[in-house]
Amino acid sequence: MEFTHMDKKGDARMVDVSEKEITKRTAVAQGFVSINPDVIKKIIDKELPKGDVLSVAKIAGIQAAKRTGEMIPMCHPLGLDHIDLKFEIVENGIKIKATVSVSAKTGVEMEALTAVSVAALTIYDMCKSADKGMMIGEICLLEKSGGRSGHYIRES
Amino acid sequence: MEFTHMDKKGDARMVDVSEKEITKRTAVAQGFVSINPDVIKKIIDKELPKGDVLSVAKIAGIQAAKRTGEMIPMCHPLGLDHIDLKFEIVENGIKIKATVSVSAKTGVEMEALTAVSVAALTIYDMCKSADKGMMIGEICLLEKSGGRSGHYIRES
Amino acid sequence: MEFTHMDKKGDARMVDVSEKEITKRTAVAQGFVSINPDVIKKIIDKELPKGDVLSVAKIAGIQAAKRTGEMIPMCHPLGLDHIDLKFEIVENGIKIKATVSVSAKTGVEMEALTAVSVAALTIYDMCKSADKGMMIGEICLLEKSGGRSGHYIRES
Amino acid sequence: MEFTHMDKKGDARMVDVSEKEITKRTAVAQGFVSINPDVIKKIIDKELPKGDVLSVAKIAGIQAAKRTGEMIPMCHPLGLDHIDLKFEIVENGIKIKATVSVSAKTGVEMEALTAVSVAALTIYDMCKSADKGMMIGEICLLEKSGGRSGHYIRES
Amino acid sequence: MEFTHMDKKGDARMVDVSEKEITKRTAVAQGFVSINPDVIKKIIDKELPKGDVLSVAKIAGIQAAKRTGEMIPMCHPLGLDHIDLKFEIVENGIKIKATVSVSAKTGVEMEALTAVSVAALTIYDMCKSADKGMMIGEICLLEKSGGRSGHYIRES
Amino acid sequence: MEFTHMDKKGDARMVDVSEKEITKRTAVAQGFVSINPDVIKKIIDKELPKGDVLSVAKIAGIQAAKRTGEMIPMCHPLGLDHIDLKFEIVENGIKIKATVSVSAKTGVEMEALTAVSVAALTIYDMCKSADKGMMIGEICLLEKSGGRSGHYIRES
Repeated sequence: MEFTHMDKKGDARMVDVSEKEITKRTAVAQGFVSINPDVIKKIIDKELPKGDVLSVAKIAGIQAAKRTGEMIPMCHPLGLDHIDLKFEIVENGIKIKATVSVSAKTGVEMEALTAVSVAALTIYDMCKSADKGMMIGEICLLEKSGGRSGHYIRES
Repeated sequence: MEFTHMDKKGDARMVDVSEKEITKRTAVAQGFVSINPDVIKKIIDKELPKGDVLSVAKIAGIQAAKRTGEMIPMCHPLGLDHIDLKFEIVENGIKIKATVSVSAKTGVEMEALTAVSVAALTIYDMCKSADKGMMIGEICLLEKSGGRSGHYIRES
Repeated sequence: MEFTHMDKKGDARMVDVSEKEITKRTAVAQGFVSINPDVIKKIIDKELPKGDVLSVAKIAGIQAAKRTGEMIPMCHPLGLDHIDLKFEIVENGIKIKATVSVSAKTGVEMEALTAVSVAALTIYDMCKSADKGMMIGEICLLEKSGGRSGHYIRES
Repeated sequence: MEFTHMDKKGDARMVDVSEKEITKRTAVAQGFVSINPDVIKKIIDKELPKGDVLSVAKIAGIQAAKRTGEMIPMCHPLGLDHIDLKFEIVENGIKIKATVSVSAKTGVEMEALTAVSVAALTIYDMCKSADKGMMIGEICLLEKSGGRSGHYIRES
Repeated sequence: MEFTHMDKKGDARMVDVSEKEITKRTAVAQGFVSINPDVIKKIIDKELPKGDVLSVAKIAGIQAAKRTGEMIPMCHPLGLDHIDLKFEIVENGIKIKATVSVSAKTGVEMEALTAVSVAALTIYDMCKSADKGMMIGEICLLEKSGGRSGHYIRES
Repeated sequence: MEFTHMDKKGDARMVDVSEKEITKRTAVAQGFVSINPDVIKKIIDKELPKGDVLSVAKIAGIQAAKRTGEMIPMCHPLGLDHIDLKFEIVENGIKIKATVSVSAKTGVEMEALTAVSVAALTIYDMCKSADKGMMIGEICLLEKSGGRSGHYIRES
């Protein structure tokens, strides 16, 4: 158990990656927006324009991933190679999955988690006039590869 | 059930607030970062610098709330009057609560939810070297006042 | 003929709006992306996904309008009430029209022109792998109302 | 004819450049702001401070090119090596030319087009109190080199 | 002596301005970049293009003032009415003075100080190839009016 | 004496770094916020929460360094490897020191100076309700290494 984001005195710090190697790194994260099944039913029955909700959420997630270093104080600014978001509509909500890749000295799990979070917030925003009870959750890392710490796969 | 963020053809749109009244509006949102109890125990026993994790998270949440309109495509840019974040460390994680106020033509629930989400991502970032299994969840609106839709309090 | 953006010595300056009245102001701007008719034909025949190109362009235009004051040095930062973009696909390209409204001390023609320009650039970006000969043009103000200078309508 | 920015279902996507080679890439774009010849005459006769209009426009164009990835949703964020803008005042307007270079896995035509567009919007903003009939146009790619697709030169 | 930016426990906080009145508020700040007199002499003798250094610095200062709330964590985002920067070249450096006005619930001293600081950094950047010994200093508030705390003028 | 940021006609320009080598580059800068000794005494005697002032200032400085290219017009956007800020409280103020490293074609002295400046502005903001007479100064480069110009150390 190690807190690389803090120095010996307990002050927050940015990790120095100057001696790390540039390698291909990928991270996959997920999240879930729970939505009233009646609202979801209308979306599935095409009475509501699901396409556009997801299209706006996808763009918002991609845009946010690029700016992760502006939002999360100790993150390094990174030039990303790829960001992808997938959505799955289920009975009681919308599942989100983001995959981010980069060739860099540090990984992109925060970028994948940020893409998921902002996509979830955007879905919330697009649906909030129909359902105030929505809840965003289950945001976590599913997989991470590249770099010294090896290949991580979340146990289900 | 109404989707104000979509027009008749189902295309996404920004709500026109030009005829709305400027009133004082407040929103309260919450979220939770679940963290391995061993890590939490170290934080509580002061072996780990909890102060600084929360201090960085608080600033990140405040900074993000101010830029909600940049992140969430259909949100209006707003000049906020106040943003506050409170944290509570419990056995299995950290609870986050954000309160945002504004005098404007539209409410600030997205600002409060964005503050919570980015604070949660920052806590995740600060602790991720110690625990890869963290999960962010329970992000929802607790209360909202001001504006035509009246006072909303989430049923618990 | 007056250059309000320059002082007597010819130096650029921001206009001082502190003594101006807050009024409702609206601006409408247009633009056009000329695209190879074969590409347009494929889009109209639904072999290509026109919906999504326009959906991405619309979001990009809305997002850019909100940040006009960051991009155009002498523009005032404004909290906009509404931004709307409409697209029309014609034989040789895509027409764009943006409408922006605000209650402020200064007008929003730069916001409308910025929304059109960034939407046009986004259409270009989405189609550039199919046609390198595209051209963006005809970006101009169509109408402007509110404020001291009265109602302007472009002569056609 | 290929739309790399869309997947098989027609959804917008960011191109995955992770397997592409880092090469030196350059792009040249142009644009034109048509302005009332009387206004241009005053600028040429030095009754109006042309220097400063172009100086502000140049800076705005350079600043915008650096932030292209924030504005154009499917663009990759890139660390640019060089951005240059040249202006030429002619009888009925101002010609703009932007050159951008980078060592990266993807090209910079959107950066050059964005530099031109924002410089044009800035010229418009600086002159709009003297001429409301201005029009921005002829924004296109002149040349592009580096990368797999080879050296492109626009036919005149 | 009061620290409004901290709560009773000593945690940083944003001041709640929701109950404050909207009034016209102005702030004037200054700064100084000390530069090798030989470099200054060249600038005064017009061997070096002083105009452009100051023009770039002015724009950078104006742009930064608009984004003060993004940079200074506890600052409120404000829609400014006016930003002006003046420069004076003296024997051993360049004096900077910034004036900012707003109609808002909180003052703009941080905006004026930010404009001065970023203009100073820009002058430094433009001259750093000629003089590595430059120093930025004397950044302080000269005057502040509007709001409850009354008219402040710095004693000289 | 050379002004690389200007072309032969004296126009501002961005330096073309496309032919420069990628090397590890580091820069160290300093600054000082002079504060009323009574205020400092309260901070040292722990009647005032010094920890949090410095914690907010540190984060603001790190965040600003990452965005130097957005603020300083002729700066290249860079993906930084490390940013660190140290503070020392003395009798009449707070000393700031920032160290920035990168592997890039151009140096990071502007990033280090920007980190110092924004940290200083943040300290000012946090303490301004207790002391309006503060002054920010002594902002200069202490050391710079990497790149063609060799190792620079400021003479004291």
